[in-house]
Amino acid sequence: MLLYLDKMEDQPLYLQVKNHLNNLITSQILKPGTKLPSSREFAMKLGVHRNTVVHAYEELEVEGKIVSQIGRGTFVNEVKTFRPTHSNRSEIDYEELNFDFQLSRHWDRMNETVLSKILDAHSRNSGVISFAIPFLPEKDFPRLSFQNSAYLAIQRHGFGLFNLNQSAGFQPFLEFLPKLLIKRGITSSQENCMTVNGIQQGLDLISKIFLEPDDAILVEETTFSGALEIFKSYGAKIIPVPMDERGMRIDKLPPLIRKFKPKFIYTIPTFQNPTTVTMPLERRKKLLEVAQRYVVPLVEDDYLSEMRCDGSNVVSLKGLDKAGIVIYLSSVSKALLMGVRLGWIVASGDILRKLILAKQTSDIQSNFLIQAIVYDYCQKGLYDKHLKRNIRLCRRNRDIMLEAASRHLPHWVRISPPEGGYFLWAELPPEISGSEIAQQAVRQNVSFVPKKYFVPDRGSDNGFRLSCVGPTEREIEEGVRIIGRILREYRASRVA
Amino acid sequence: MLLYLDKMEDQPLYLQVKNHLNNLITSQILKPGTKLPSSREFAMKLGVHRNTVVHAYEELEVEGKIVSQIGRGTFVNEVKTFRPTHSNRSEIDYEELNFDFQLSRHWDRMNETVLSKILDAHSRNSGVISFAIPFLPEKDFPRLSFQNSAYLAIQRHGFGLFNLNQSAGFQPFLEFLPKLLIKRGITSSQENCMTVNGIQQGLDLISKIFLEPDDAILVEETTFSGALEIFKSYGAKIIPVPMDERGMRIDKLPPLIRKFKPKFIYTIPTFQNPTTVTMPLERRKKLLEVAQRYVVPLVEDDYLSEMRCDGSNVVSLKGLDKAGIVIYLSSVSKALLMGVRLGWIVASGDILRKLILAKQTSDIQSNFLIQAIVYDYCQKGLYDKHLKRNIRLCRRNRDIMLEAASRHLPHWVRISPPEGGYFLWAELPPEISGSEIAQQAVRQNVSFVPKKYFVPDRGSDNGFRLSCVGPTEREIEEGVRIIGRILREYRASRVA
Repeated sequence: MLLYLDKMEDQPLYLQVKNHLNNLITSQILKPGTKLPSSREFAMKLGVHRNTVVHAYEELEVEGKIVSQIGRGTFVNEVKTFRPTHSNRSEIDYEELNFDFQLSRHWDRMNETVLSKILDAHSRNSGVISFAIPFLPEKDFPRLSFQNSAYLAIQRHGFGLFNLNQSAGFQPFLEFLPKLLIKRGITSSQENCMTVNGIQQGLDLISKIFLEPDDAILVEETTFSGALEIFKSYGAKIIPVPMDERGMRIDKLPPLIRKFKPKFIYTIPTFQNPTTVTMPLERRKKLLEVAQRYVVPLVEDDYLSEMRCDGSNVVSLKGLDKAGIVIYLSSVSKALLMGVRLGWIVASGDILRKLILAKQTSDIQSNFLIQAIVYDYCQKGLYDKHLKRNIRLCRRNRDIMLEAASRHLPHWVRISPPEGGYFLWAELPPEISGSEIAQQAVRQNVSFVPKKYFVPDRGSDNGFRLSCVGPTEREIEEGVRIIGRILREYRASRVA
Repeated sequence: MLLYLDKMEDQPLYLQVKNHLNNLITSQILKPGTKLPSSREFAMKLGVHRNTVVHAYEELEVEGKIVSQIGRGTFVNEVKTFRPTHSNRSEIDYEELNFDFQLSRHWDRMNETVLSKILDAHSRNSGVISFAIPFLPEKDFPRLSFQNSAYLAIQRHGFGLFNLNQSAGFQPFLEFLPKLLIKRGITSSQENCMTVNGIQQGLDLISKIFLEPDDAILVEETTFSGALEIFKSYGAKIIPVPMDERGMRIDKLPPLIRKFKPKFIYTIPTFQNPTTVTMPLERRKKLLEVAQRYVVPLVEDDYLSEMRCDGSNVVSLKGLDKAGIVIYLSSVSKALLMGVRLGWIVASGDILRKLILAKQTSDIQSNFLIQAIVYDYCQKGLYDKHLKRNIRLCRRNRDIMLEAASRHLPHWVRISPPEGGYFLWAELPPEISGSEIAQQAVRQNVSFVPKKYFVPDRGSDNGFRLSCVGPTEREIEEGVRIIGRILREYRASRVA
């Protein structure tokens, strides 16, 4: 313990000793019941007069922080009211002045993320039926495989895994990626790939190299909330592009491009989040044509195209991209487990080189151990098996939820059955607010994310997203029933 | 394999098949010797006429990409000249148009990082004596301990480690941090701590929430290159503060603060990188006073204070900070292994909440497995032992290098013996360029980092940094001797 005492300071020494001990007790570094050194012993260690310590102990005892027991010594008291929460911060002896730190404008306005709201709600209430984000079942977690892979990887590459490495990623995993990508119709070489901590970091790096405040970008009018938060955090002007049941409307692009000169177009062409629509091949080709004609990079977020339940695969934009204008993002986190945080970017040489530099300035390199573990898992064919199991689960739960929706939700709620992925998307009449429905649902222990979080300016709210993976069959039935009742009551009260 | 054929396209089908195969061969996804399906079989799979495949195979054979052996089948040919480097990218059949992507101004200018240069040099030349960055000895890597910790952590928390978690970090590690920090004189509670992917990411997140382009910040006039790169990447105006042998000159601060209104002051108070100076207690207190008076946050980079070889600890700025104005960064990566990428931030509530949101938008959460491994390692007291071993190594190598310097370097090179850390700092007369010395040294297989990379505008270059951990005793002697000779010759040629 380094106790810093300053004999020149205004504060008397005994008060410095007292305050320091008080901090240690309040922050529970000294736990209740801990025996303190005798005043003589402590004074010697600190190089102060014994009375200094005696005086400090006396005041702490008066305040009930410590208790001395004759013949036994001095002990830290049980502080019954102590809980390490914000409300108790005032107990910490030093005052936290309310400095008016000057944050950047974009960050001054940033007070929550959708993810933080969802996770907060979950940690507060475990009895909730959550359709907010997919929760994959614990029984499918490949514990033994991960254990063995981790053990062997550290055995084999240990020192190398934890040393400074090339920022592009773990070499064997990079070599493996083209084999995984060819299944999606993408011919790439490892020189065009890099690993990132999930798609989220990929989008962050792309924003970092392209965006200055007030730069415009184009996005689908309803899109992934996490991406919107990143773009906002760089001060981007986010321009929504109208959608229909086949995704982004390409005919709307040219005037928007001419007007706003966007730095890039962000799109989720397959099982779009949250609307679940998939852009058909013809439209993908048109999108590429427009991007090339106006020289606007396409950022393709392929977060989950491999989780297809019905229909046939549509080749990714990157698979159609002969000119190197597509920056492709994908990940294993969605299908494996959300906290794996391992994704990758495929991009043409010049862009990739900048992104690797951006990675280097951001956090130098992604964790190599997890890359080695996932590489092993994929290499052994276990990832494909895992995926198949997940697809079965998705299909089953989607069908249960669609069936429940057809029975319980009013006819004016529109849900188009998705061909894959974790979500259903419910569209509401314009006068109904998804957020108000969500608020009422939370009070009845059902949670989901309303439309406004998926809309750039939060200006539209007539919809909500339901994740069908996590709750049991019974919970899906029950949750959808509750949502149906709330919707009907809400509309009746409006009409009345 | 998903092969996308477009019957509507201009390109004849056989050419599409041929080009696709060519890509697969060029990118070595189809390795030399691989047997291709028969034309009949392949045609059926693709749903095209057999002649289409025959035609494609014929052209590929003429070009020497494949070879057919009568009675055996068709095989991918040995491509003797193929090497997967940039220069061969033109072999990939689709043309990579040279789009004029519009990057942000800061990123357009960013073409290298010091780290990328160092790692490049290392991968190109293994015979070099490197004083460029510390390389810790492989024999000290705690392989068995990491293996066991990883295995047990996945056993115990497996599912939880790879799921979505609170972005602040792995709970047991956060609970442990205050115990580690108290040894540095910092009383904190876990509510004020978060984990990051090393100090690099900590600085990135701090820049993200504070900086807009052209915002000013103050830094020591010679400082960590990685930090300068981050600040530049956000478009910051980096203002150097003059230093002396006790670090940043506090008397110079008030006019600079009044003139530039900096968003924060970045400082490395202990074993400053690269100058190795340590700011004494009195000056730290004055720095805090100034920061408080002008309400400028202090970003304290405590990358290595625990690696002290002589003298006594000086309490960190955060340990003296009663007002919550210090944002404290530290890490285990430097003392353990550089690629561990595990650091943490200690900051007051409001700032920490914003930083956690920034972490959430950047990459959601740091890898939990490495946090569990390091937690275990620290908890068992192994980290402290590791540190002691490293301190002995540092002290020994520092003394060997100082001794070699006193024998081999000219008297006009100034090196102040540091009290700890990995580096020696050499100051040169103003007319001598560290970069030119470094360039000549590289030709003689000795590498180190010249001063200009540690200076905001690269405007000053009369110095260089030597890392004393990595090379053997003999290599230190030899490397320093070579540097001495180069310096003498360089100066002689200038004077002559």
